[in-house]
Formats: sequence, C-alpha cells, structure tokens
Amino acid sequence: MEKILIFGHKNPDTDSIMSALIMEDLEKKMGSNVLACKLGNVNKETEYALKYFNVNEPITIDNLEEGQEVILVDHNEFAQSANGIEKAKILKVVDHHRICGFETSEPLFYIANPFGCTATILYDMYLINNFEISSTIAGLMLSAIISDTLLLKSPTTTPKDENAAKALAKIANVNLEKYGLAMLKAGTDLSSYTPEQLLTLDAKHIEIKNLKTIIAQVNTVDINDVMKIKSDIEKAMNNTINSEGLDLFILAITDIINNNSQIITLGNSSHIAEKAFNVKLEDNTAFLKGVVSRKKQILPVLIENA
Amino acid sequence: MEKILIFGHKNPDTDSIMSALIMEDLEKKMGSNVLACKLGNVNKETEYALKYFNVNEPITIDNLEEGQEVILVDHNEFAQSANGIEKAKILKVVDHHRICGFETSEPLFYIANPFGCTATILYDMYLINNFEISSTIAGLMLSAIISDTLLLKSPTTTPKDENAAKALAKIANVNLEKYGLAMLKAGTDLSSYTPEQLLTLDAKHIEIKNLKTIIAQVNTVDINDVMKIKSDIEKAMNNTINSEGLDLFILAITDIINNNSQIITLGNSSHIAEKAFNVKLEDNTAFLKGVVSRKKQILPVLIENA
Repeated sequence: MEKILIFGHKNPDTDSIMSALIMEDLEKKMGSNVLACKLGNVNKETEYALKYFNVNEPITIDNLEEGQEVILVDHNEFAQSANGIEKAKILKVVDHHRICGFETSEPLFYIANPFGCTATILYDMYLINNFEISSTIAGLMLSAIISDTLLLKSPTTTPKDENAAKALAKIANVNLEKYGLAMLKAGTDLSSYTPEQLLTLDAKHIEIKNLKTIIAQVNTVDINDVMKIKSDIEKAMNNTINSEGLDLFILAITDIINNNSQIITLGNSSHIAEKAFNVKLEDNTAFLKGVVSRKKQILPVLIENA
Repeated sequence: MEKILIFGHKNPDTDSIMSALIMEDLEKKMGSNVLACKLGNVNKETEYALKYFNVNEPITIDNLEEGQEVILVDHNEFAQSANGIEKAKILKVVDHHRICGFETSEPLFYIANPFGCTATILYDMYLINNFEISSTIAGLMLSAIISDTLLLKSPTTTPKDENAAKALAKIANVNLEKYGLAMLKAGTDLSSYTPEQLLTLDAKHIEIKNLKTIIAQVNTVDINDVMKIKSDIEKAMNNTINSEGLDLFILAITDIINNNSQIITLGNSSHIAEKAFNVKLEDNTAFLKGVVSRKKQILPVLIENA
C-alpha cells in the first residue's frame, strides 16, 4: 500500500515541519501508513529545534501524482500546497488558518481551530485520543508553538497555546523562556542568506481580491541589521514582482525582542498597505508599532482595505 | 449582545434541523448566546420526530445582516446557505460534506468528519467535552442519524453512526428499528405536496463543472406511487430549469424499504446522468439498483463524468 503523505505549506516554517512530524506520529498510533514530508528547505530556527530534540528532517517532495492520498497540516489553500494538489485525494486537514481556495469532491476529516499554532490542535488530538506524548514529540510541539506565537507574545496566542506550551515544556524537560529565546534567535541568523533566499524563508502567496500578493516575513533581533541591505532586498523583490506578475509584495521585518515590524512594500498596489496600516510609505518602507502577526495584524487589514 | 445564529442548509432535512437544535444546546453548555434557526419549512419526517420528542421547530430566517455571527451545521457551501452568508462572520462549522464554495477571511473552528450524519459528530463533541446528553437531545440526534443513513442502511453509514445510534436509542428510550421505520415512513407521506413542493423538499443546488444543477430527492415506500404523477413532476422540473437557467435537474425517488432509486432527469446536460450511472434514460427516467445516497452514490459519479 502506498504511503499517505503528510505535509505543511510551501516555504515551510517551524509549525509546518513539526506538525507534519507530529501528525505522522499520531497517525501511526492510529494504525495508518503515513510519511511526513516537506515542500521546501527548513529554516535555521527549525534546524535548531530539530537538532535540539535529535529528530531528522522530513523528506522533500515536489509534485503529487494523481490520486495520491495526502494529509495537509498548517495550511489549506491550494496556492500554498504541493503542486498537483488539485488531483490528490485529501483525506484530512489540520489547520489554524482561514479557509480559502480549498475544495474537495468528497467528504473528509477537517479540523481547524483559531489557535496560535497547528501543533496546539494536535496536542488536543493526543489528549482526546488518550495517546501518550513522548518527550521528543513534546519538544516538536513546543517548538512549533514558540515559533508561531513568538514565545507566547504574538496577538495570535490563545490560552490554549499557553497552557499547551507550559505542559509541553515539562514533558520535553526544557525551560520554556530559555529554550524559546534560543530557538527564536537561531532563526534570526540571516547572515548566510542571499536577499533572494531571505524573501522565500517564510513567504505566503495569496490573492487579495484578485491582486496577486506575496507577504514575506523575517524575524530579527535588530531591524537595522536587515535594513542595511534594503536596496539589495528591493532589487530581489522587484525581480519577483516582474517574474511572477505580482501586484503587491510586502516584506515584514519583525523584531522578536521588542515586538514591532518594519515593512518594505513594492508593487503597483502598494498604496493598499498605506491605507491598511494608516502609514505613509517613505522610500517604500514604514514602521508598524506592535505588529508581529501576519495572520492577525497584516492579512485581515489588507483584505479589508483592498 | 446579539445572538449567534445556528442553522443548517436550505430545504432543511432532519439532520439540518436537529443539528441546529443540538448545537444550540451544546453551545449554551459552553456559555454562548446562541439561537437555532432554519432556512425553510420542516418536512413531515422532521415534524414527526420533533413532535415525538416534544421539541418546537426553530424559527425561520431569511437574510443575514452584514457582520452577523453565525454557526453553520450540516453544510458549508455558500450556495446552500443563508442569503448574505458572504458578509456574515462564520465562527464555526460542523459538517459531514465535501468542502466547496466556502471561504472565510479569518481563522475559525471547523470540524468535518466523513460520517453519515452531522449529529454523529455532535455526539462526539458531547463526549469529548464530558457534557450530559439529555433524553430529548438524544432523540434529536438519533432522528438525524436515522434520517441521513436510512436507518443505518445507506452506504454513507459508518461504524461511528451505528454505535452512536445504538447508544442514543437507549438514552432516548426508544426502539431503534421501530421508531426509525415509523419516522422514515412519516416522511414518505407526500400526499399533501404539490409537484413543485415535492421538488424542493430535499433539493441540493450545486455547480458541477460550471453546470448549474439541482439534485432533489424524495423518500417513498412505493416508487410507483410517485411515478403516477410523473408528467406533473416533469412539468414542474422544466419550469424550474427555465426560471433558474439550470443545465441539469435530477429527481431521485428513493425506495426506503428495498433501497433502490428511480431517477427522473431533465435539462440539456441529462446525458451526463446516462454516462455516470451507465443507464439509458427512457422517457427521462431510469432505475438505479442499490442507489440511495445522493452524497456517496450520485454526486461523486456525476462530478466524475461531467
């Protein structure tokens, strides 16, 4: 029997990688023949977490064959999924995003919760099924929650995420604050990336009222560090705008210590960002005080103002 | 605070009505300010069940105001939902259908399971939350399961539905077979309906590869009884085809005793039905042996062959 493939979104973040591995463990406990995969390279934050808990990266897949059975975690939009997803058989989805650009021809298992992290939903699924959570799986869950909630400081954080993180830190036998900050800092080491790579580390491709848009995000401990190469970043952004026919490209450079973001915004529809965030772009950039969450503080206001 | 409205699909069947009432009970137990509603008249089967368990019909609503908070049960497709659903704020969905023509701008709670009935998913939610199921709520759940699974005989029936039905019959203090058959039979009394009304009792509006389609279904204990008024039914079907610009209109007349269906098929795309069911329509009609489930045995093969 061919294995059911489990994967998160393109340009995988820590939640997408960990949730695939966690779901693999959960499904195996249920007796399914599954394989965790990924749709792109892991970032340095994820690399740090996997190394810390001594877990191998999932394998990378690209195209799906027609009829391939799959389980999606941490995404549902086909635009963010594997190539060929339209022809795959989607058995399950576990996600914490809005539902959009997704459809099936048959009933399926779908669980979404407006929690800060997919791993928090998976944590619930272990409890409901009375499955034991190993210290390794707890470490992966915890890493995903820390990543998606910026150590429980993002406005996407719910009490569910907080409670899960505290319980999981105990099972994984780590200090939540200390491990969390070390993991987030590992992700801010951008030194080895070209501007092009930096833009694809965590990039969401979305259509906002027919406008082809990318919203990319990088975490840093010092916004100025990234802004030093602003002109190189802009060149790379413009290349992508031209090659992909984008209307809007926003890069959010997020300060994980002080919880603010600097955006660089390019494309013919960049006026939408000015309206949405009530700022004036100067030299294509603006400072967004208190903004750290793409899902909660960037995407909805863009949709509202498009 | 304005109430959150809970409702099933247009042309409500027993699962849509009962699941709205059950979800209302569940949400109240969670402390929410909710109101069960319906998007059309209840059919005779539902009427029988509500009377049996001494429960009032939910109120009927039509248009939703912008920003109205809602919970959808037993459907997700906007085409089957309340008018104005695009501008409503969908907080939760509990459903057992494929996902299609559905999107939100924000994360939500969504639970779907490929069970035979929405009420079976709700039954699980009571168990997970450790909520007591009253004998009345058990009666409503049981009625929904009997209706959607044709007394556990439809191929949509899962072990989950069976186990739930057996447990619920005990709590509701009824004989599953005896009550089930009486309830289904109550639904086959079509004597008071005009052909027009008969077509809207349980009609699903769907787009099958851009073809505007209605698949209606009526239950009977004798197919010939319904076929006596075939020409009147066809006249009413053709009127709907013209007024709504349909490409395909299928009426399935389902024999709930012997578990077969007779279809009447009209519209420019009726050849799709011949290909899908591998039958030759004679005088617009064909007998489909063993076919009782629109969701499992009619819709997927139509999509595949369109």
